[in-house]
Amino acid sequence: MIANELMITKQTISSFDPPKRRLMGPGPSDIHPRVLNSLSRHTIGHLDPEFVRMMDELKNLTQYVFQTDNQLSMVVSGPGSAGMETCFVNLIEPGDKVIVCQNGVFGGRMKENVERSGGTAIMVMDDWGKPVDLNKVAEALKANPDTKIIAFVHAETSTGVRSDAEGLCKLAREYDCLTIVDAVTSLGGIPVLVDEWGIDAIYSGSQKCLSATPGLSPISFSTKAVEAIKNRKTKVQSWFLDLSLVMKYWGGGVKRSYHHTAPINALYCMHEALVMCQEEGLENRWKRHHDMHLLLKAGLEDLGFRFLVEEPYRLPQLNAVFLPEGLDEGAIRKRLLNDFNLEVGGGLGAFAGKIWRVGLMGHTARKESVEYCLNALKRIL
Amino acid sequence: MIANELMITKQTISSFDPPKRRLMGPGPSDIHPRVLNSLSRHTIGHLDPEFVRMMDELKNLTQYVFQTDNQLSMVVSGPGSAGMETCFVNLIEPGDKVIVCQNGVFGGRMKENVERSGGTAIMVMDDWGKPVDLNKVAEALKANPDTKIIAFVHAETSTGVRSDAEGLCKLAREYDCLTIVDAVTSLGGIPVLVDEWGIDAIYSGSQKCLSATPGLSPISFSTKAVEAIKNRKTKVQSWFLDLSLVMKYWGGGVKRSYHHTAPINALYCMHEALVMCQEEGLENRWKRHHDMHLLLKAGLEDLGFRFLVEEPYRLPQLNAVFLPEGLDEGAIRKRLLNDFNLEVGGGLGAFAGKIWRVGLMGHTARKESVEYCLNALKRIL
Repeated sequence: MIANELMITKQTISSFDPPKRRLMGPGPSDIHPRVLNSLSRHTIGHLDPEFVRMMDELKNLTQYVFQTDNQLSMVVSGPGSAGMETCFVNLIEPGDKVIVCQNGVFGGRMKENVERSGGTAIMVMDDWGKPVDLNKVAEALKANPDTKIIAFVHAETSTGVRSDAEGLCKLAREYDCLTIVDAVTSLGGIPVLVDEWGIDAIYSGSQKCLSATPGLSPISFSTKAVEAIKNRKTKVQSWFLDLSLVMKYWGGGVKRSYHHTAPINALYCMHEALVMCQEEGLENRWKRHHDMHLLLKAGLEDLGFRFLVEEPYRLPQLNAVFLPEGLDEGAIRKRLLNDFNLEVGGGLGAFAGKIWRVGLMGHTARKESVEYCLNALKRIL
Repeated sequence: MIANELMITKQTISSFDPPKRRLMGPGPSDIHPRVLNSLSRHTIGHLDPEFVRMMDELKNLTQYVFQTDNQLSMVVSGPGSAGMETCFVNLIEPGDKVIVCQNGVFGGRMKENVERSGGTAIMVMDDWGKPVDLNKVAEALKANPDTKIIAFVHAETSTGVRSDAEGLCKLAREYDCLTIVDAVTSLGGIPVLVDEWGIDAIYSGSQKCLSATPGLSPISFSTKAVEAIKNRKTKVQSWFLDLSLVMKYWGGGVKRSYHHTAPINALYCMHEALVMCQEEGLENRWKRHHDMHLLLKAGLEDLGFRFLVEEPYRLPQLNAVFLPEGLDEGAIRKRLLNDFNLEVGGGLGAFAGKIWRVGLMGHTARKESVEYCLNALKRIL
């Protein structure tokens, strides 16, 4: 077939057999066996009528978990950062002003998104570990009445703090702004009420409190946001993430037209995870996260850990804690992983080497995980 | 937890049980049970040392399948169109001239990518079903000596035609241009020799001749292409696809820094598919595709089908054929799907309703598939 020998020869690489970790970091979270097994279901075509029916159900399930009637509710074929970029590139046109609230890593990523989309980012900064200050946002709005969008992170994965999404959306409406909300870590763990709060564009991740496989991003856009996309004067800079094109596949019209090949098996998994979410009921799911947080909190405080975030703003699904004095966090984290197959997260940025982020997301948020974690810590400390 | 009742109530949606189709369309292809089962392996963290080791192996496997020593060989966390966009947004800066060869659907998508990246696309058009004409490209180069990049599709998924990638790359080098090559449908089915041909940037898809789950895109960049990225004067417009950031995770340096959460389980699947590719050996794999094509060709011609593409340019893995006169292609395709669980592809664009695209990609390229397909057709026609 080809004249010469192959230039690059084979090496011997065998199948990968991952260890059985417990995932108690900032995500991915543990996946229920039922959801994990759904990944290996038979692959069918992305235009198969049966697959299209599954996609309709997935849209309905996405609406339920976001608590919205938004017609443009779907799952982006990429991880949370692709979902984030979908929101920014579709809503921003060159020259647009966007207020970005930053109180951790992910607000900084939003700034990058605004600038790379040709917009101007007006930064409202708060300390890491503190919620977004609504007064500062109101001031920024007064100083910039031509602001088009307010973007903020509902649940900061870098610090475990929850901001007042409802209040921020109310403020945005007063100034006739659209909102872009990062719900990567909040969705499925604490209330995220898209219609009640009036969120315009929201994205999340599959691998946090929804406990599906990493690599997908559920999104939802309000009618107002869809209008903004339809009225764009310029093309969206990304072909792959251009919702005016993607909608033709997800839209549920008479005929779905091909845009890109959907990640079939990953979507089976997302469907199954959301079916389980629906079976449990969102209210019960939120309560479960809250209850498990209280159990973990009591145990960690007994061991001398203390929380970074003030009580009213703590995320039950992501516990950012300072270790007891004098402990080498890196060494202990390594022992947890190697001796107990237990993953907890380290700190980021200024908190690197100082805090842990202990996740109780989705399927991880159960008594067994909390007890296992506390027992492991008792044996090490 | 929240005051009011949930606005959006649950509907009863149950687990999805996909039918067992045989996938003989333009992709996704059938997946070997061993590869399919790898998807359900235990999920671990994207910074877990064991996962990082798997990623090193995956890089090595990617180099093998692309036949390259390129250090920047990796798997994009999105489908082929995300891989395409990765090549274009990283190599194009505003004002750059790009010659785009179009002889089917995907050349048109390249044009969109060039323009949305701020570049100028110089189109070299060939009829659908014909390979790219090197003389026309040479003329375009003469007329545009300041061209930075030549972009073309090696194997057009819309028509089943193969273009002369080696010749086009040689031409590009004569004019000191970079090349961007779409190998979505070629990789793993026919020779793709990145180093020998001197390809600068290449992308493929997981779901064609590699027979992994849809949703990933292997890519590879030459040293010259990496230099071009390093010397950019402007930031890459996509944060998600910015290789200068992604490389820090995939680069294999001392410490992998977090960029985005990798699609863990999908990467298990890609790893397993490439391990199988390595076990078989690329030369044997190419031969298998070729042999199965000959078998299918003989059977289809006996039944009165005739090929769209001239023999020297035909892709063994994607057989574009006109049906025997007087048959309703849509009705027969539907019968194949419903009565035989067999998916073949219809035509696109001007060929919609006129041709079929019968895929023999990856795991689908076996005697059993060919015989099943021919027997089903014999019963219907």
